[in-house]
Amino acid sequence: MTHSLRITDPDDPRIAAFRQIRERDLVGREGRFIAEGTVVLRLLLAAHRAGQGIRAEKLLLLENRLAGLESLLADLPEEIEVYTASQPVLDAVAGFHLHRGVLGLGRREAVPSFEDMLAELPARALILVGCGISNHDNVGAMFRNAAAFEADAVLLDETSCDPFYRKALRVSVGSVLAVPHLRQGESGQLLRRLDEEGFQILPLSPSGTVEIGDIQPAWRVALVVGTEGEGLPADILSRFQPVRIAQSSRLDSLNLGTASGIALHAIARGMGKV
Amino acid sequence: MTHSLRITDPDDPRIAAFRQIRERDLVGREGRFIAEGTVVLRLLLAAHRAGQGIRAEKLLLLENRLAGLESLLADLPEEIEVYTASQPVLDAVAGFHLHRGVLGLGRREAVPSFEDMLAELPARALILVGCGISNHDNVGAMFRNAAAFEADAVLLDETSCDPFYRKALRVSVGSVLAVPHLRQGESGQLLRRLDEEGFQILPLSPSGTVEIGDIQPAWRVALVVGTEGEGLPADILSRFQPVRIAQSSRLDSLNLGTASGIALHAIARGMGKV
Repeated sequence: MTHSLRITDPDDPRIAAFRQIRERDLVGREGRFIAEGTVVLRLLLAAHRAGQGIRAEKLLLLENRLAGLESLLADLPEEIEVYTASQPVLDAVAGFHLHRGVLGLGRREAVPSFEDMLAELPARALILVGCGISNHDNVGAMFRNAAAFEADAVLLDETSCDPFYRKALRVSVGSVLAVPHLRQGESGQLLRRLDEEGFQILPLSPSGTVEIGDIQPAWRVALVVGTEGEGLPADILSRFQPVRIAQSSRLDSLNLGTASGIALHAIARGMGKV
Repeated sequence: MTHSLRITDPDDPRIAAFRQIRERDLVGREGRFIAEGTVVLRLLLAAHRAGQGIRAEKLLLLENRLAGLESLLADLPEEIEVYTASQPVLDAVAGFHLHRGVLGLGRREAVPSFEDMLAELPARALILVGCGISNHDNVGAMFRNAAAFEADAVLLDETSCDPFYRKALRVSVGSVLAVPHLRQGESGQLLRRLDEEGFQILPLSPSGTVEIGDIQPAWRVALVVGTEGEGLPADILSRFQPVRIAQSSRLDSLNLGTASGIALHAIARGMGKV
């Protein structure tokens, strides 16, 4: 049996980090983040065990879910605290009805440098680069697709939003915790650096002349996506040959999650990754 | 100038259909639906003009947006009533802060029969079939992708949710108003009927043996998707050869919107539609 502590007071200081989750989302958590649901929690625990810079600190679980989670919690590292609560107490802590009843508090330790991340990539590497991705659903979808198509890393420029934000993490189905990634730097500089490292830079744009399915992937590929609507900055599109996804001429663009999925699928297939 | 009437009382009976939008979503609108935002409104007005069973009845607009919408509202059919209101009145009507400030009320007239819809399809037809799609975001995404990849129709079985639901319509970016579709019947029967009509039936499933990119599309193709998680019913997967999207073996499945986009892109390319 997992050792757990029962919480009866929503104001108990031991679970203060879970209090008023939505309001806390807005101000940020200084390196900490909330994992919701069993799938995301499983990936959080896997990341903790892997010891690659992500730690699980505390779990807060609906008491009647504990039995069903026993296999997930088996051999839980003892430094992870487990708290349980009734539904009313849990809802009072979170500030809304938490029907999933599974919360984890994680912490990011030291973030790798860009150079360290490059050094860790395999020789045959596929990375997904996001520029100015301000929508949490889209960032989450990018990570979910990156995991599905065996991308080796995700790079976000400094103007993109935080993938550890609760909604992005949830939409990614926890893939943010599994796919190596960085969020830093100016997009043009990031791409120049990848170009120097021998990456084939493929900016996705409706203005592209080559269809993604006709691309012969190089040994190392960086697929680059911008925001829905605005798209990628002109300097990127003029420096690197953009590629397009064939589509109806009557529509402006696809949803970014879908577009990144189509492009990753095509390139991952071409590289023999899936 | 568009002729419009200014509303100052949130309880004005002329705009009662827009009152408490979210609560009304839950009980349904008996053939009527709400279009939000300029893009969806544009498609509503186009559908109204096309006279194919969708009518625009009323618009309710934030008063200071009227000037910016002048081109959209030019030559507006006179049977469409246009109301304007200040932000506080509009918010009081809708029941939440309506920052878009653009609402339309539409009505579905007679729904075509399955046989009528089949008769309207071109000889070289691509249709997307959804079975048990209960998530409004996923239904909306299916329509957006169907439009992007020139699918000729969307068929939903009777257990799928209503694409005219406000959120599905919004996620589809109005494509529900542009792509011919039906929601009726039991999925097995629908597919048998399409089979009789010479459609190549392609159920998408992680259990498929052929990759979607390796499919040679027939003259008429029905791409079939099920719910995320559960997937398609066993009787469909045993009757028709399922196809898969190559992906990491460590993940269960893609987001349904993304999966439908990848499959539609591959088949539409193979058919020369895009």
